[in-house]
Amino acid sequence: AENIEEKMEHLIARMPLETGLPEMRVRGEAARTIGQLRMFADLVEEGSWVDARIEHSELKREPLPKPDMRSMLLPLGPVVVFCASNFPLAYSVAGGDVASALASGCPVIVKAHSSHPGVAEIVGTAVREAVVSCGLPEGVFSLLYGSGKDIGQILVKHPEVKAVGFTGSQKGGRNLMDLAAARPEPIPVYAEMSAVNPLFLLPSAFENGVNLAEQFYASLTMGAGQFCTNPGLVFLFREGSDKFIQRLSELVNGGETMTMLNQGIFDAYQAGEEDLIHHKKVKVLANNKNGDIACGASLFGIDIEAFLAENFTEEVFGPSSLLVFCSSVDDFIGGLEKLGGQLTASIHLNGNELEDCQKVLQMMERKAGRLIYNGFPTGLEVCHATVHGGPYPATSDGRTTSVGSLAIHRFTRLIAYQDFPDIALPAELQESNPLAIRRLVDGKII
Amino acid sequence: AENIEEKMEHLIARMPLETGLPEMRVRGEAARTIGQLRMFADLVEEGSWVDARIEHSELKREPLPKPDMRSMLLPLGPVVVFCASNFPLAYSVAGGDVASALASGCPVIVKAHSSHPGVAEIVGTAVREAVVSCGLPEGVFSLLYGSGKDIGQILVKHPEVKAVGFTGSQKGGRNLMDLAAARPEPIPVYAEMSAVNPLFLLPSAFENGVNLAEQFYASLTMGAGQFCTNPGLVFLFREGSDKFIQRLSELVNGGETMTMLNQGIFDAYQAGEEDLIHHKKVKVLANNKNGDIACGASLFGIDIEAFLAENFTEEVFGPSSLLVFCSSVDDFIGGLEKLGGQLTASIHLNGNELEDCQKVLQMMERKAGRLIYNGFPTGLEVCHATVHGGPYPATSDGRTTSVGSLAIHRFTRLIAYQDFPDIALPAELQESNPLAIRRLVDGKII
Repeated sequence: AENIEEKMEHLIARMPLETGLPEMRVRGEAARTIGQLRMFADLVEEGSWVDARIEHSELKREPLPKPDMRSMLLPLGPVVVFCASNFPLAYSVAGGDVASALASGCPVIVKAHSSHPGVAEIVGTAVREAVVSCGLPEGVFSLLYGSGKDIGQILVKHPEVKAVGFTGSQKGGRNLMDLAAARPEPIPVYAEMSAVNPLFLLPSAFENGVNLAEQFYASLTMGAGQFCTNPGLVFLFREGSDKFIQRLSELVNGGETMTMLNQGIFDAYQAGEEDLIHHKKVKVLANNKNGDIACGASLFGIDIEAFLAENFTEEVFGPSSLLVFCSSVDDFIGGLEKLGGQLTASIHLNGNELEDCQKVLQMMERKAGRLIYNGFPTGLEVCHATVHGGPYPATSDGRTTSVGSLAIHRFTRLIAYQDFPDIALPAELQESNPLAIRRLVDGKII
Repeated sequence: AENIEEKMEHLIARMPLETGLPEMRVRGEAARTIGQLRMFADLVEEGSWVDARIEHSELKREPLPKPDMRSMLLPLGPVVVFCASNFPLAYSVAGGDVASALASGCPVIVKAHSSHPGVAEIVGTAVREAVVSCGLPEGVFSLLYGSGKDIGQILVKHPEVKAVGFTGSQKGGRNLMDLAAARPEPIPVYAEMSAVNPLFLLPSAFENGVNLAEQFYASLTMGAGQFCTNPGLVFLFREGSDKFIQRLSELVNGGETMTMLNQGIFDAYQAGEEDLIHHKKVKVLANNKNGDIACGASLFGIDIEAFLAENFTEEVFGPSSLLVFCSSVDDFIGGLEKLGGQLTASIHLNGNELEDCQKVLQMMERKAGRLIYNGFPTGLEVCHATVHGGPYPATSDGRTTSVGSLAIHRFTRLIAYQDFPDIALPAELQESNPLAIRRLVDGKII
């Protein structure tokens, strides 16, 4: 973290050239990256995360004596991490996956993303210098360049690799999942793939429709819409939504174009927009012109009946959102039933509407990893209670999170020691608790 | 648990007829089954297992306000459990997988094992009666009969099924893993498959060689050797092992034959024995004759050089063990390198030998889910610190355990609630902590 801080001027010079992202974003994302590294360092120094458990022997128990049994978490082994195109710092060379894997005790092999090789080199140097200055084994961190099809596949198939972290497209993630599942020894793949992050707007949300539109537009266009948490789908009551739609359309039409991360992402965004523009059931509510690799935001509308009849659930990566006009809470439920797993689901309502929305909330729980009340999905807080996950296809493995301190548990496995003498036990499990960590001893937290 | 207790006379009448297991085993396994159900009931009633976490908002934080974020574990969804041939009670209809899945809040669909349909019916009735008397939804528990190839595959492929529990052969487990990984929505399979459970005997182990032989024989023949924790492979120093080998051979040659669970298991055992008997590098140390579906124990020997040159790492399911004669700790390390993932690894030594064995212990940690010091792998203690797992191919997923209270975490996923009002939160996350569970609040356990 300190080494990255020291290289801030290099990053500010380089990252905008490679990504089109502004200096403010470089500073913000670097702060998050550094914060994540320090959060995991604190977690590891505190030490209780290993979930140490001790059950003392009862030699006189009938009918059989009870052995001394102690368990904890161990690192899984070498982890391959693929850098994310849209997070050159926070989900790349020293990003969340790398930090959580290193924190768990796993060596990490990083594959750089072709969109920002210079940033990768700067951060990779920072990590390599830390490996040397901390006296860690050299192999604890490696940084490789090359295509996912070549280097990526070789890494995922390598017998010594025990887990994979990936952030990217659904197709790319599923390819890695299939590759890992077909290995002689299958290994877990933690792929964070795609989501449309549905919003549900109850009538009360429009009481201050202008304000809601401004907040929504800020969320939609943050980072040129290139966030996995971008609000791509909005279910809303048509009634009362006029001012909201009007102000939102003004903002979209009048907004500046935004440089996207790379040509491929821009091309895909344009293709996604075109599909919606030419769909006969879809109405273009507002559409700012695209420039050369710079996109404008776009806003589409469709009736719930048409939405339910066809497939509009694929992500358009960028600042585009589809509004689905509903007339009842049942329409929300119908819409939710159409959706696959999501990273987030947000609902805007007031207390009076809560009772009618019980079933909507229950379905949101089943579909998404993070539920947001009267807010927007972008701008994820990194803390001990963060869940950035969700059922497939939002991620490969909805049991876990890729953001927040709980992410460390993706790279661990359980082990038990039976009747071991203290001297042969890891410090975490020794009787005197030399690390002074929190443990579960004979069923009680001590 | 109460309903099973009430049906003990039925089970004692039926289970020996279907399995060849004696009444004592029926009573012992029923006690374990009932104990497991009550352990999970206690865990759920206590409630802290959901890992509830609260991070309060900080609205005045700069540069951005911190939202209120709360996370916990939710049930994954419907779970399919395959009954184990060798645990008609403890890993079948109301066994460990079913108990842990139900405890997490998942509905369970059980596929009975063809070896003990009557036992399945008795226990299934007990569970069904409990579902009614507890007022649970009928679909919370289902029991189906049929072949794995038909019913089993249909269940694993069903889109509403979210996880699979399996105990059985490596081939059967891998088939289910491949099937689950190829689904449109891949799901986790927790397959507990096969292991040879290596023992490492240092010279000091032979100081009381006769006693060691008697303990080893008891472990080898427990349940006619039909335990996944059966000690199938023993690395030992040749020097000083004479009395151990002699007494063990006497016990094997003089032992009674043991009825195996079914014809298929008996045939596989005989075939495994024959392979070793006819292998020119393997010496038959002792071999009790097999009867009609009743097996005798068998003991084989081989030099470490021959062991390393060929593949002897496959499990022979039954009371058979292969002794590998070594002359150094380095031979142990070479042997460990040949082995895949194991459920257990055991070492017999005294304190003076510990320093020489550091690398052996480290490799045991990498290879197995449970390490045993001066003991034997059979007879697993079910508690909060139990780990019955291990790297592939011992299990499909070495991150977890299928026995002990930690097994509940296999059937859960994380969810977070952002800025939710108390009234819309699950009780576990409400501010006043109405369930009085242990939670992580702003980084502190409260």
